[in-house]
Amino acid sequence: MIIVMKLDASKEEISNILKEVRKFGLKSNLSRGKEKIVIGLIGNVIAVSPGHFQPFSGVENVLRVSKPFKLASREFSPEKSVVRVNRVSLGGNDIIVMAGPCAVESREQILETALKVKEAGATILRGGAFKPRTSPYSFQGLKEKGLEMLAEAKEKTGLSIVTEVMAAEHVPLVGEVADILQVGTRNMQNYALLEAVGKYNKPVLLKRGMMATLEEFLMAAEYILSNGNSKVILCERGIRTFEKYTRSTLDLTAVPLLNQLSHLPVCVDPSHATGSRDLVIPVSKAAVAAGADGILVEVHPHPEEALSDGAQSLNLDEFSCLMEELRPVAEAVKRRI
Amino acid sequence: MIIVMKLDASKEEISNILKEVRKFGLKSNLSRGKEKIVIGLIGNVIAVSPGHFQPFSGVENVLRVSKPFKLASREFSPEKSVVRVNRVSLGGNDIIVMAGPCAVESREQILETALKVKEAGATILRGGAFKPRTSPYSFQGLKEKGLEMLAEAKEKTGLSIVTEVMAAEHVPLVGEVADILQVGTRNMQNYALLEAVGKYNKPVLLKRGMMATLEEFLMAAEYILSNGNSKVILCERGIRTFEKYTRSTLDLTAVPLLNQLSHLPVCVDPSHATGSRDLVIPVSKAAVAAGADGILVEVHPHPEEALSDGAQSLNLDEFSCLMEELRPVAEAVKRRI
Amino acid sequence: MIIVMKLDASKEEISNILKEVRKFGLKSNLSRGKEKIVIGLIGNVIAVSPGHFQPFSGVENVLRVSKPFKLASREFSPEKSVVRVNRVSLGGNDIIVMAGPCAVESREQILETALKVKEAGATILRGGAFKPRTSPYSFQGLKEKGLEMLAEAKEKTGLSIVTEVMAAEHVPLVGEVADILQVGTRNMQNYALLEAVGKYNKPVLLKRGMMATLEEFLMAAEYILSNGNSKVILCERGIRTFEKYTRSTLDLTAVPLLNQLSHLPVCVDPSHATGSRDLVIPVSKAAVAAGADGILVEVHPHPEEALSDGAQSLNLDEFSCLMEELRPVAEAVKRRI
Amino acid sequence: MIIVMKLDASKEEISNILKEVRKFGLKSNLSRGKEKIVIGLIGNVIAVSPGHFQPFSGVENVLRVSKPFKLASREFSPEKSVVRVNRVSLGGNDIIVMAGPCAVESREQILETALKVKEAGATILRGGAFKPRTSPYSFQGLKEKGLEMLAEAKEKTGLSIVTEVMAAEHVPLVGEVADILQVGTRNMQNYALLEAVGKYNKPVLLKRGMMATLEEFLMAAEYILSNGNSKVILCERGIRTFEKYTRSTLDLTAVPLLNQLSHLPVCVDPSHATGSRDLVIPVSKAAVAAGADGILVEVHPHPEEALSDGAQSLNLDEFSCLMEELRPVAEAVKRRI
Repeated sequence: MIIVMKLDASKEEISNILKEVRKFGLKSNLSRGKEKIVIGLIGNVIAVSPGHFQPFSGVENVLRVSKPFKLASREFSPEKSVVRVNRVSLGGNDIIVMAGPCAVESREQILETALKVKEAGATILRGGAFKPRTSPYSFQGLKEKGLEMLAEAKEKTGLSIVTEVMAAEHVPLVGEVADILQVGTRNMQNYALLEAVGKYNKPVLLKRGMMATLEEFLMAAEYILSNGNSKVILCERGIRTFEKYTRSTLDLTAVPLLNQLSHLPVCVDPSHATGSRDLVIPVSKAAVAAGADGILVEVHPHPEEALSDGAQSLNLDEFSCLMEELRPVAEAVKRRI
Repeated sequence: MIIVMKLDASKEEISNILKEVRKFGLKSNLSRGKEKIVIGLIGNVIAVSPGHFQPFSGVENVLRVSKPFKLASREFSPEKSVVRVNRVSLGGNDIIVMAGPCAVESREQILETALKVKEAGATILRGGAFKPRTSPYSFQGLKEKGLEMLAEAKEKTGLSIVTEVMAAEHVPLVGEVADILQVGTRNMQNYALLEAVGKYNKPVLLKRGMMATLEEFLMAAEYILSNGNSKVILCERGIRTFEKYTRSTLDLTAVPLLNQLSHLPVCVDPSHATGSRDLVIPVSKAAVAAGADGILVEVHPHPEEALSDGAQSLNLDEFSCLMEELRPVAEAVKRRI
Repeated sequence: MIIVMKLDASKEEISNILKEVRKFGLKSNLSRGKEKIVIGLIGNVIAVSPGHFQPFSGVENVLRVSKPFKLASREFSPEKSVVRVNRVSLGGNDIIVMAGPCAVESREQILETALKVKEAGATILRGGAFKPRTSPYSFQGLKEKGLEMLAEAKEKTGLSIVTEVMAAEHVPLVGEVADILQVGTRNMQNYALLEAVGKYNKPVLLKRGMMATLEEFLMAAEYILSNGNSKVILCERGIRTFEKYTRSTLDLTAVPLLNQLSHLPVCVDPSHATGSRDLVIPVSKAAVAAGADGILVEVHPHPEEALSDGAQSLNLDEFSCLMEELRPVAEAVKRRI
Repeated sequence: MIIVMKLDASKEEISNILKEVRKFGLKSNLSRGKEKIVIGLIGNVIAVSPGHFQPFSGVENVLRVSKPFKLASREFSPEKSVVRVNRVSLGGNDIIVMAGPCAVESREQILETALKVKEAGATILRGGAFKPRTSPYSFQGLKEKGLEMLAEAKEKTGLSIVTEVMAAEHVPLVGEVADILQVGTRNMQNYALLEAVGKYNKPVLLKRGMMATLEEFLMAAEYILSNGNSKVILCERGIRTFEKYTRSTLDLTAVPLLNQLSHLPVCVDPSHATGSRDLVIPVSKAAVAAGADGILVEVHPHPEEALSDGAQSLNLDEFSCLMEELRPVAEAVKRRI
């Protein structure tokens, strides 16, 4: 961390800062330029917030030099992490396709989808039992019953299950069925939930908040990691911008960037990001070309009957077509699906 | 709701839509233009999501015509709502000042602040016991002990208390001390929490999500209202933009706009929005001039020793100065502090 | 400027940087921390871009410590600048109201508006002769004829004129009639235009780009100032965000912030920012309370007949009402209208 | 276009609207719902702005149903357009790589780069002679001399040239050397410039404004097309968001979306979007996988000596590597480089 003092900072103001720095067990290095006086902090600054020094008299600016996340960082683990989910591995050479409906709506719907996406090559079944909805008047998911249907689909197909958990108190309930606990975009900074899944021994798929910087995203992962759970999978799903034709703006540059900054596997959700069926196939290919370790795609046997997000769901034929088109792209970047 | 069909939509595609509309118990009105075929939905469309009709074959676009919130809307309650908090009223002629530190740090700190902000004219004491922090390594609040200190400050000064609740399971605990339960910006779409405060019988100060549209903000209020709690206070606290000099971009236009769209009282938090002490006074005056019913301002007896957000806290003298400068502005818009 | 080297940077990489720094006539200061090696640049760094050092081998990050604008900065001119426009002064104690239609549409329209806004207390007439429009099929302004009508309105009322200039080659033409040349939001980084108005001897009202940071805004002002024209008036007019109820998000915090960063007068355009007549009055009051030196408001004798932007224009009665409501707010902040 | 009236709109208010609609030569269709009265406009509405009807008394909302661009739309030209630039075609099966330095800096630099990028497979040379820079103190390009150097590089290598034109009055000068005139992101809504290149008979590479919606982007293309020049190439280069690790957020979904909305060729600039050399290769592969017709990539023989944007420039080896890695991805999506 670097503290930039005003040029007219008094001796006392400077010595106050130096004293404060020592309180944190840190050393400092003072350099006096023509325009500014700069104090560099030396030591373990990860617990020190730049905001702490800002209010001191004489301070002009405080700049962070090192990254605020540690366990999630590539420096901490130079080798890419592989998260094992039953028979599949996320973060290895294989690109993992997680497919299924936005919401579990009925036994028939989830079983039919599960069988068909498995046939086409998916290895993980997605499907929401607890659904976060903007409106209190919208369908909120089948909840416990939805979990039971997922359990049946898992038993019948051998697919692993990824499904969302919306509250800390539901973690054990959802964790009984889920092989991967999903933390949704609206809950990326729900710290009670992050701590709960951090203490639970199952892989966590953490979706980027639609308003979160990559730094905040990795800090949210850090919450889970620092609570003891190292099986975190990052998922880019689009951020909010001024553009109106798409539901969100998918930040595909995040994929190689997260691969540089962190050792954690990185997935992409092209369905929520684009909000439009026609865009899912080209965008999925782009995600794989950019280096994603997996994709999370919405598939519904009859999208026009979906209780939520039908507009962005592929039907079963479109999903087969997606799988076929993804394979050569995966090979072109020396991966396998 | 209006469904725009492609010009080449077939008879069957159109009749499928009309059938689907009837399933919701709605009527429809078909109008055939030169460029488009438009189907208007007639009836109670609040539970119908535009996304439901989007995936149907032949559909080009679905537009919402009426607002998706109901209980929060001005149409539902043409008169402004007044939320009573012990002796003060939010939403009436008085402008309410809620002041105090970002976090409760010690008995001395909170008592000193409480006494001084009361002296200067504040009627509600703010202070965080449970603190949501971006980093798991930052100070997370004194939790239960912080609540006890707030209870003592309340007893000693008669000030009402507003403090944040971060998880559904903490609502009864926090609610024992708090006169107003605060739902923070990161939890604006934590639906488990919204439901929990919606079922609890205390006023709720709902902060706008830092990346939430005003529509989503009012939908979050709708979650609380539809669970039975009518005492909701809206709080604009800045949204996230590309601008870097300030922590957030305070959306002051939201104040008169929320007053048009909704009957709920509207407050402003100039401290978190600007992130800078020097900006709090002018921005608070602007908030009052724009029609805010209250402001929520961070005050710390020694900002340079604050464990969080010191950079944006006023010291006690600055707070007195703020109160003095606010009074003539309040009078200029025919309000009182 | 501060260059942060990777901890494993080699001696050669460091010495390359030090050599490069000397090429710019700058000195440097090396400090070796536990986590990072930091090189501070000493001297006149204003012409050096952080991007220059970024690609050097061994560099982790380059941070700017001092501001990149100079002539526009408060440090350069600690006293607030006053821009004189005929009989009125922008940046002094008086708050200046610039009013008129979005576009000059006819002789009658502009004369009627001019007389009435003068009567109500405006001292500068606004009105577009050259109109930048998103669509090539929309009304593009009366151009030369519009300028003639403005000239007549000026002669008949004594009001000064502010009107937009859209291209460098039009500066002399528009400058003949205009007392203030307006550079619009879409042209804030049209450098050919900035240079042209910078070389012309008339006040310039520079609108913030709808996606410009305050730093870029001040850099655009710096282009004009560094070309010799010191009469620059800044105008906040709203930035683009994800919020949909308003056309732009007015950044009122920019007003006190620009007053801290710069000595230039600061105005606000509440009409374009909000895009809605009903919001213009409360937002104008907020602008004055925040410390604006002037406001730029759209007024049309018959908004429903306006060829552009009628939705955000006040009619003449509403404008009188605005003026009446603004006066007490101005007094509350010790200013005068 | 659809006009939604308030439910309590009077007969007179409705009849005023119907009269106004007729003034534009349009017909209308009135439908009276339980909650709203809806008026649909029938006819050629492209020149009618929704803002025109908004200020009328009784109007609640005005919604656009059809797209505001015409010549740029896929409906206008269902077949993809191919823009021919000497021996290469943009928009056909070949993916075109345009490579070269951000700025032309010297004869040696541009000649060396041209020879090497040609060798590696680029067919168009990029390089700025006129440079738009945020700071008036930064290097602004070699201007005329830079154009001469580009002309020599073209003669020696046979590569076509794409270079930026910053002002309407420079079009003939730049057009003498350039095979493609580039309109930069800051000038996307510089209408004087759009008209000038629209009247000039050379292909135009139009960069998306960093703050422009795709609709505005296509409206800017419409300005060029409607002035007579049909050879427009669209270029996505990243939009501005709150994310700080990258310079811009590249919107790769824009590629398939523009291919749906428009018939014009679509390119991607991964260098400006990411601002970082390390990200250019993965992001370029993603662009090709998403369906881009070309990429525009910065290459510099010695990035660490570049006068601008060195941080994002590939060196010659990295560029060869990019070309090699792009080829299998192009094949995977059935294209060729």
